[in-house]
Parts: sequence; C-alpha cells; structure tokens
Amino acid sequence: MFLVTQAKTAKTASKKLAFVSTESKNKALYRIAEGLKQNTQAILEANAEDVILAQKSTDVRDHTNLKRSNSMIDRLMLNEDRIKAIAADVIKVAVLKDYVDDVIEDRVLKNAIRLQRVRVPIGVIGCIIESRPNVTVDVATLCLKSGNAVFIKGGSEAINTNRVLVRIMKEALGQSEVPFEAVQFLDSTDRAIVHEFLKLHEYIDLMIPRGSQKLIQFVRENASMPVIGAGGAIVHLYIDKFADVQKAVPVVINSKTRRVSICNALDTLLIHKDVPAEFFEKLKRQLEKYKVKIYADKRVYALFEGKYPYLQHAGEMDFDREFLDFAFAVKMVDSMDEAMEHIEKHGLRHTDAIVTEDHARAERFLKSVDSACVYHNISTQFTDGGQFGLGSEVAISTQKLHARGPFALEGLTTYKWIARGNGQVREP
Amino acid sequence: MFLVTQAKTAKTASKKLAFVSTESKNKALYRIAEGLKQNTQAILEANAEDVILAQKSTDVRDHTNLKRSNSMIDRLMLNEDRIKAIAADVIKVAVLKDYVDDVIEDRVLKNAIRLQRVRVPIGVIGCIIESRPNVTVDVATLCLKSGNAVFIKGGSEAINTNRVLVRIMKEALGQSEVPFEAVQFLDSTDRAIVHEFLKLHEYIDLMIPRGSQKLIQFVRENASMPVIGAGGAIVHLYIDKFADVQKAVPVVINSKTRRVSICNALDTLLIHKDVPAEFFEKLKRQLEKYKVKIYADKRVYALFEGKYPYLQHAGEMDFDREFLDFAFAVKMVDSMDEAMEHIEKHGLRHTDAIVTEDHARAERFLKSVDSACVYHNISTQFTDGGQFGLGSEVAISTQKLHARGPFALEGLTTYKWIARGNGQVREP
Repeated sequence: MFLVTQAKTAKTASKKLAFVSTESKNKALYRIAEGLKQNTQAILEANAEDVILAQKSTDVRDHTNLKRSNSMIDRLMLNEDRIKAIAADVIKVAVLKDYVDDVIEDRVLKNAIRLQRVRVPIGVIGCIIESRPNVTVDVATLCLKSGNAVFIKGGSEAINTNRVLVRIMKEALGQSEVPFEAVQFLDSTDRAIVHEFLKLHEYIDLMIPRGSQKLIQFVRENASMPVIGAGGAIVHLYIDKFADVQKAVPVVINSKTRRVSICNALDTLLIHKDVPAEFFEKLKRQLEKYKVKIYADKRVYALFEGKYPYLQHAGEMDFDREFLDFAFAVKMVDSMDEAMEHIEKHGLRHTDAIVTEDHARAERFLKSVDSACVYHNISTQFTDGGQFGLGSEVAISTQKLHARGPFALEGLTTYKWIARGNGQVREP
Repeated sequence: MFLVTQAKTAKTASKKLAFVSTESKNKALYRIAEGLKQNTQAILEANAEDVILAQKSTDVRDHTNLKRSNSMIDRLMLNEDRIKAIAADVIKVAVLKDYVDDVIEDRVLKNAIRLQRVRVPIGVIGCIIESRPNVTVDVATLCLKSGNAVFIKGGSEAINTNRVLVRIMKEALGQSEVPFEAVQFLDSTDRAIVHEFLKLHEYIDLMIPRGSQKLIQFVRENASMPVIGAGGAIVHLYIDKFADVQKAVPVVINSKTRRVSICNALDTLLIHKDVPAEFFEKLKRQLEKYKVKIYADKRVYALFEGKYPYLQHAGEMDFDREFLDFAFAVKMVDSMDEAMEHIEKHGLRHTDAIVTEDHARAERFLKSVDSACVYHNISTQFTDGGQFGLGSEVAISTQKLHARGPFALEGLTTYKWIARGNGQVREP
C-alpha cells in the first residue's frame, strides 16, 4: 500500500530530521516562504479549481444549510493577500524558539548519576484538515520546526490547493538539509482510506484532527494512535447579574460577530434573569446590525418577540450546536450555578467566559468550569495561539492530556529521560 | 448499571475534591496510612485468601510457565513489613509537593489581559491493576493528592485484598474533608465488565492500565478515553566494543537479577562481537550463581555451549519476550547500528541502555534510541519514580504524550488557561 510506504518514509525522515540543527531548519522554512511567494500564480489557479468545484456541489456535510456552505467557501478561498499571509506565518515559525534539546530538568542524584529530562520531537505527526488550506502550511512548518515529520490528509474540497502547497514545500526542502520526505501528503479523496490512515500507529505517533466535532469524534473512535482533538467547540458566554452592561454588550458582539467561522466564536449566550433591561435593549440594537439570528429559549423569546426580526424558538438541539455563522442560542438562567451546569452539560471544554463585576463569583466560575480556556470580562475570540503569545498554533486542543487549549511548538515535542553514569547499579 | 453510577459518583466527588486544600488532602492521607497500620490483621487475612486461591489455580495467563505463576504470587503476597511499607509510601505522598493551582505561566498581554496557565486536576482517573495490591494504595493516594477521583479495577487474583484496602481508605476519607466517594472500586471479577469500564469516557478522563503489555494493548484498543500505557517493556542493554568489562558485568547482573518481576528488569542483552573474551568469562560465572537461563542466538550459543548449564537456543519470539524471571535473551551484533536497529524493531520504548567508554558513541545512542529512558553505563533497574526523585510513581509510561517514563503527581495534573480582563474585545 502506498499509504504504508509513505508512513514508513516519513518515519525514516523523522529520524534524520531529529539531528538537523535549528539553523538548518529555519533556513528550510525561509525557503518554503520564498517558494510560496514565487508560486502564487500556481496556488491561485489550483485554488480556483477547488472553489469552482465547491460552489457547484452542494455542501456534502450539510444539505440543509447553504450559509454553512458559503462559510466553507470563505475558508477555502485564497487570494494574493492570503498567500502573502501564509508565507509571513512561515517566517513567524522560523523566528520562534526551537524547543528540541531543551533541558527541562538536570540533576545529579545521590549516587552520582546525572539525570536529565530533555525535549525531543514526537516523531511523525498525522494531521487531518478540513478546508482552510492555510492550515496545511501552518501545521507542516510547525511540525518541521519541532523536528517532526508530518503526514497530511486534507479535505477533498481543497485537494488541488493542498497538492500544490505540498509540492512547493517539498521542492523548497529539497534545497535544504531537512529531508523533503518529512512532508507526506495523502493525495486521495477516497473516504475509505481515512480508516487505513488512522491505523498506522506503527509509524504515526500522534494524530491531530482539525475540523468539526464530528471529525474529531470519528478520529477519536477509530484511530489506533494517540489523538489530540482540536476545533469543534460550543462556546459559552455567561452574563452575570453583576455584569457591567457597558462591558457586556461589546464582549457579546465581539464574541459572536468578529469572525463567525472560527471555533472560538460564541455559540450560546447565557443571561442571568436579573440582568437589567438596558442590556437587552443595547444588545438587540447591536445584533440587528449584523442580522444575527437568535435561537431563543422561552423567556428570551418572550422578551424579544415583536421587537427583534431574526428571532426563532430554540430547540433543545440548538444548545448543542456549533453555529459557525451569524446565529447563536440564547438562554436565560436563574443563577450562576445553573449557567455552570448548562456549560458542564453542553460544553465541549473549549472556551467559556463570564462577564461580572463580582470578583468572588468570577473566581468561582474560573475555577469550576472545566474548560481549556476560561475568561473573565473578555471576548471569547481571544482563544488563539497568536493572541496567547505562542507565535502560532497547531490547533486548539479540547482534550485534557498533553496539550490543552491553543498549542504550538512546545506541544509538538515530548521528552526523554537521559541518565549518564559510571557503572552504577541499583541497591537491593 | 452500578458501574455508571460509580463513575458518576466519582465525577461529582472530583469536583468537590478540586476545591480541597493541600493541608486537608494531606490530613486525609495520614488517616489512610494510620488506617492501614491499624487494620494490618484484616489485610493479611484477606490477602491470605487471595494467595491460597492463586496457589491452587494454574496461572490463567500462561499455562506453560509455572515460574511465571510463582512470580505472580510473589507480587500478590503481603506481610506485615510490606503493609508497613505501603503505609510509609502513603506518608511519602502526603509529604510531596501539591501541583494543583501551580501557576505555570503568568503574563500581562499588550491589551492588558492577564493570562495565566494554571495546573488543575485531570478529573477522574481510571486504573486497571494486575496483581501487586500495593499499587492499589499507591495509585489511589497519588490521585487524591493531585485532586483527582480514582476508579480502580484490580486483578481478580487480588480481589479480597483490594476490597479490604479500598474499604480502609474510604473509612479514613470519611473522617476527612476529602469526599470518600473519590475512591471507587470495581468489585467484580467478571472480565466482560472491563469492556464497559473502558467506555465510560463521559466520566473517566484518563485510563491507566498497569500490567502486562497484553493488558495495555487491550486497553489501548478498547478504551474510549485517553490512555497512558504503563508497564510492559522489553528492556535492552547493549555492551559496546569499547565497554569497560569491570563496569559491564555488574551492570548486566544488576539489570537482570536485582529484581526479576519488575518492568525495568533486563530482557535482551546485545553484545558487540569485539567485546573481549574476559567479559564472557566473568559474565558466565556471575549468571551461573543466579541460575539465569540464557536464550542465546547462534553465535552466543556457540560461545557458551558446554560451558554454561542454563543455555537454550533463542527462537525469534524470544527477542519479543518480557521475561519477568531469571532468564533473558542474548544476541551478538556486528555494530552499534545493528544494536539500535534491533532495539527499534523489538523495543517497547521503556528503558534501553549502553555500556561504553566511548563518549561520542554513547551520545549517539542516547539521542537515537527512541525510548522513555536511555542510559549510559548504569543498570536498567534505575527506571523508577523513587530513584528519579519524583517521590513516588503512578506508573512508568511507555507512550510519548503527556507523561513519559516514570511519572507521579505532575503527570496527574493538566492545566487550564485563565484570562482576566476589563471588557477587552479582539481587534478584527
């Protein structure tokens, strides 16, 4: 099988790559950035093919929602500026600190053994990416910088774009000390092949699915190697009775509307029943500007009925929806505990926030809510590797182990224990 | 199902436990230690039942190997000293640093948001333990100290012992601020129930199998939650042509014979063809004392034939065996690269060591061999949380993510990102 051959090749390349210096890795990344810029025309042509195909076909993932389809095309489409931005992101990765060979601990034990805990690459990273071709380059360059080989499966809707991007990266690596075999691309739109891909634990050390909750769930259930699930979020914002309306409204609007197609966009707004009428008035005016559709629970519906044009009754399923659109679910709660219970029940442990002026309540919320990112009085859209000062991000992990929340180069390393001695043996 | 009820109860308890102070957790641990000592008689009686049953029955896991069965009984059997040691280990855990609430990072971003990365408990830890009832107490107390609830499935051969140990722990917790529901025990010897246990990802955040490679493999394949595989190792020691014989022989003997029933005991000895005859002479004399059985490849067999009483031809399977006994596989190699390739092919990434006086060769071995613990000129039996200064250990992880090698309290935590602001919204 070509799949196994590719995986083996990646494994072999990863062993060479572990010995490549930071300087050489950075040089390779600069070459990739250069290659992307020089090949802008080729990328745009391939991308145009993908976009045309995507526009023709109904969104295969959701026949009922054309807006979803538009959002998908927005994520897929590249232009000159976006390609420049992708190349600039590669340079950003080159500038980032290299964690490989970092000594986390260094101790001399009583028996004179020198024990070190040293960061090392993980090996081969598998990545399944839905749409957003910029992620292909992001992930590949972050993997290379951290000394890992990468095996990428892109979405079928982006296959032409990804094929060209990977070719450009491999050509650039061919002129560097990084083995070009360290980037492998699963050049197939056959869905069945994903099953085989997920069973390659002998060669792939970690699988990162980047996309919908559905994809992540599928990968978790079928992968035989460890998985870091990323993306897929039901983001909650709770407006407490002690919220400052002047802060609350902009935070809601920014959380929902700044960008709607990303995972940190607000999905469910929870409002304490004692929040003043002023909040609802101001919120309504702002939401209307963006034509945000509200899926309202009974109490919120009653409050907005006849006063807000884009109103609809929420079904119970709407509180488990990632909207990725100008729409969200809004619910009234009797207490902060009810809000936290709702988050516990419906949340996917990504980002959840509170707006309140009560310090003690804020702290209780931050400590109790079991999510990767918990915020007080800020927009949920801050969940981002760049915003967190990580330089970039591989993904936003929604699981608890290894890496949680936005993670980048550090999360792409593991460690080994190295002990050096002089013939020491262990006492009985 | 009582299983689901227990898991839910553990989840609820874990939420309370996350708020319990270090001092209160430590007090609870002291109570457990006290309880174990006061109930020594009850533990010994229950353990005697288990031992008698184990002696009567053939080892169900390996009908062909009675010695394996003896090693199992050694691991199962408790006496007053061992119970004292278990209680002493609990006190050691109480004395250890509490990682919960540790601030890993604390930064004020340009936009005046204060971003912290804070250690938090994982939640509910599931643990499947084969034999060794001391591990039950070890794991439970480490979980409690790190703010986690624990749900334990012991081996059927230790069920009476485990039942009493868990009862003692819960009684002790009943007199403390730690909810006694934070310790749950799967009181069943029904093997089918393990399948259900492994599907409780809604409540159990992490599953730790402690036992044979077979168990770990089974758990990895069947668990729906993240797994940290622990135990199960093919430990290699490579004697380089530049080895100092005076160091090499004691390192081999200690690696193989200090204790044979633990995972860091040597399984495969690889010897460079140019190692001097003196090494073989000395090694033979020492091994004979312990009646160590050698599964030898052709060249080693030829060298030892007629001169060593416990000699046998190695089959290819013997290089994939975890012996847990006074026996090991021995193979001659033509080069260090051949040794490293053998380790790559047969190893389980636990502990692998080299004996050599050549610094550059040692460093290449340490960097190239992809194992949790890589050693130069010391016994493989140093792989141990206590020896590493971790105070104790939950397990020795043979996977690359989250925790690798011996891990204890730090590995039982995760982190969350907490951001506090004053109404900040994200720029377009």
